Amino acid sequence: MTVQTQTPPTVSDMRSAADRLRGLAVETPLIESPALNERYGARILFKAEVLQRTGSFKFRGAYNKISSLSDEERRRGVVAFSSGNHAQGVAASAALFGIDALIAMPSDAPAIKVANVKKAGAKVVHFDRVRDDRMTFVKPYLEEGRVLVPPYDDPAIVAGQGTIGLELIAQSERLGVKLDAVIAPCGGGGLIGGISLAVKDALPETSIWAVEPENFDDTGRSLAAGSRVSNAPGHTSICDALMVSEPGAFTFEINRKTLSGAVAVSDSEVKAAIRDAMAFLKLVVEPGGAVGLAAITSGKIDIAGKTVAVVLSGGNVDYDAYAGIIGGA
Amino acid sequence: MTVQTQTPPTVSDMRSAADRLRGLAVETPLIESPALNERYGARILFKAEVLQRTGSFKFRGAYNKISSLSDEERRRGVVAFSSGNHAQGVAASAALFGIDALIAMPSDAPAIKVANVKKAGAKVVHFDRVRDDRMTFVKPYLEEGRVLVPPYDDPAIVAGQGTIGLELIAQSERLGVKLDAVIAPCGGGGLIGGISLAVKDALPETSIWAVEPENFDDTGRSLAAGSRVSNAPGHTSICDALMVSEPGAFTFEINRKTLSGAVAVSDSEVKAAIRDAMAFLKLVVEPGGAVGLAAITSGKIDIAGKTVAVVLSGGNVDYDAYAGIIGGA
Repeated sequence: MTVQTQTPPTVSDMRSAADRLRGLAVETPLIESPALNERYGARILFKAEVLQRTGSFKFRGAYNKISSLSDEERRRGVVAFSSGNHAQGVAASAALFGIDALIAMPSDAPAIKVANVKKAGAKVVHFDRVRDDRMTFVKPYLEEGRVLVPPYDDPAIVAGQGTIGLELIAQSERLGVKLDAVIAPCGGGGLIGGISLAVKDALPETSIWAVEPENFDDTGRSLAAGSRVSNAPGHTSICDALMVSEPGAFTFEINRKTLSGAVAVSDSEVKAAIRDAMAFLKLVVEPGGAVGLAAITSGKIDIAGKTVAVVLSGGNVDYDAYAGIIGGA
Repeated sequence: MTVQTQTPPTVSDMRSAADRLRGLAVETPLIESPALNERYGARILFKAEVLQRTGSFKFRGAYNKISSLSDEERRRGVVAFSSGNHAQGVAASAALFGIDALIAMPSDAPAIKVANVKKAGAKVVHFDRVRDDRMTFVKPYLEEGRVLVPPYDDPAIVAGQGTIGLELIAQSERLGVKLDAVIAPCGGGGLIGGISLAVKDALPETSIWAVEPENFDDTGRSLAAGSRVSNAPGHTSICDALMVSEPGAFTFEINRKTLSGAVAVSDSEVKAAIRDAMAFLKLVVEPGGAVGLAAITSGKIDIAGKTVAVVLSGGNVDYDAYAGIIGGA
């Protein structure tokens, strides 16, 4: 079965994922800054996935995927490739199930992410982000019998990330507000794919916006082209979590139907957003996690008069990198 | 009426304060790190007052105090002295009531605190932390007719801070845990006074620990002496929010009965705790707000095998100061 023939997860699949995650994943709070609301003439509800177990949303999908495996599959152990947040999600989930995990990480992954994966008890092997093809690199481990936990192109992963959408719906109802828009980071598209399926089901008029780093705006250009296009090679970004070569095949089939659009933000816009998150929200947000806020602070998404949810997807950033961004104002 | 003859707030006073604060103050979440729990063999529930309106717990007491004034008193305007967090709490509360506020701040207060007070619409005047007596400095403003909003030595202030205790009780019940101890920062003693009154009423066996900066351990030494003693002059600390000369008269009468003890932490222990809060909790905590965590990470309070709540009381720290602490690991 190729990924293209898989069906997107339903809201019922996401509810099952939420049941599995209960007591393990954090129902992350919506955080608000009266000062930021005033500055943008809007109501901004920040979904603080930086406070999620492992410091990013990735735990949700990884745990749900490993839950969906058979006992026999779990005994064989799992393998994953990831710049770090998915790696930590898989490592922590495997530890909770008491199974073996091997993670392939790019050699330039942030040190804190590598350290956390090892601390969770997983084995780490390194690949070269530019030179190595990820699937070719992990093939020998699959041949050993390990089961792949893909970073995004998988219904169980997307269902896990979709639990953020279910929480956003319930939390905004409790606040008595109607969400005009949801703004979320986009790398391979699993996070925004899951959220958009959940939100569009309950709130069909809410618009969903993807935010990507400049030069990694493959989803934005693919939406415009009507089919998947790749990023030009040779670029880099401070948003290590969002550096993909093209949208996922499975996730793009979802996102082409659910997204209102995508915008791209520069490294300096992301740094300004990280500083704002520190000063106004008191949250540590990593570069890839801050692109949604950067889309607002840079004026690329106009939210005046609206109520919007912005997903701060992760907070795993090295001390020195973070100090450099905060001190570089 | 002198402060010594005032009665401590009751739990009913705190419930009234909670009613007034509803929809304005944040019911701040309890945040947990599986990695920190494992490191200390304990369950640590961090009460994240850094996520409170104005970035610290001080909004609770200030708003409750201004609520308790008569319309006539509010028309005369308010005055407060504060290194910054109480100042922001008073300024934001005054703005919500549409009344005039004048804040006396030490000339070395963090720039972010001064800027936030001005942004909230309050007037700022500066005093010298060492040279000027605070009450003498604000006397002319009181003679103008302004009403003082004291930083801690006041029943309405203590009742407002006590709403944190009410939330801790309800939140720990929802989690199904019994709190063995509550650990909170201590400057003048209003925060820990309010919390201890609320917690001891519902959970008399829970111990309450105050944490102070080294050389500003007046509450610890006063508890040992059985009466209020002052700090030796000439010292400084990175914990600008906790630099008092002696315990409050009103708050010490509460704390001498409710506290199990007090410990003092050094600047370098506080810096290490701030880095841990960044890496494990993804929360920006200011020096004075991090002393409770520092008491644990330095080993000064042993929590092995226990369930404890640690109050992270504020997150208002300048970019450069914070970058210096995070980058200085």
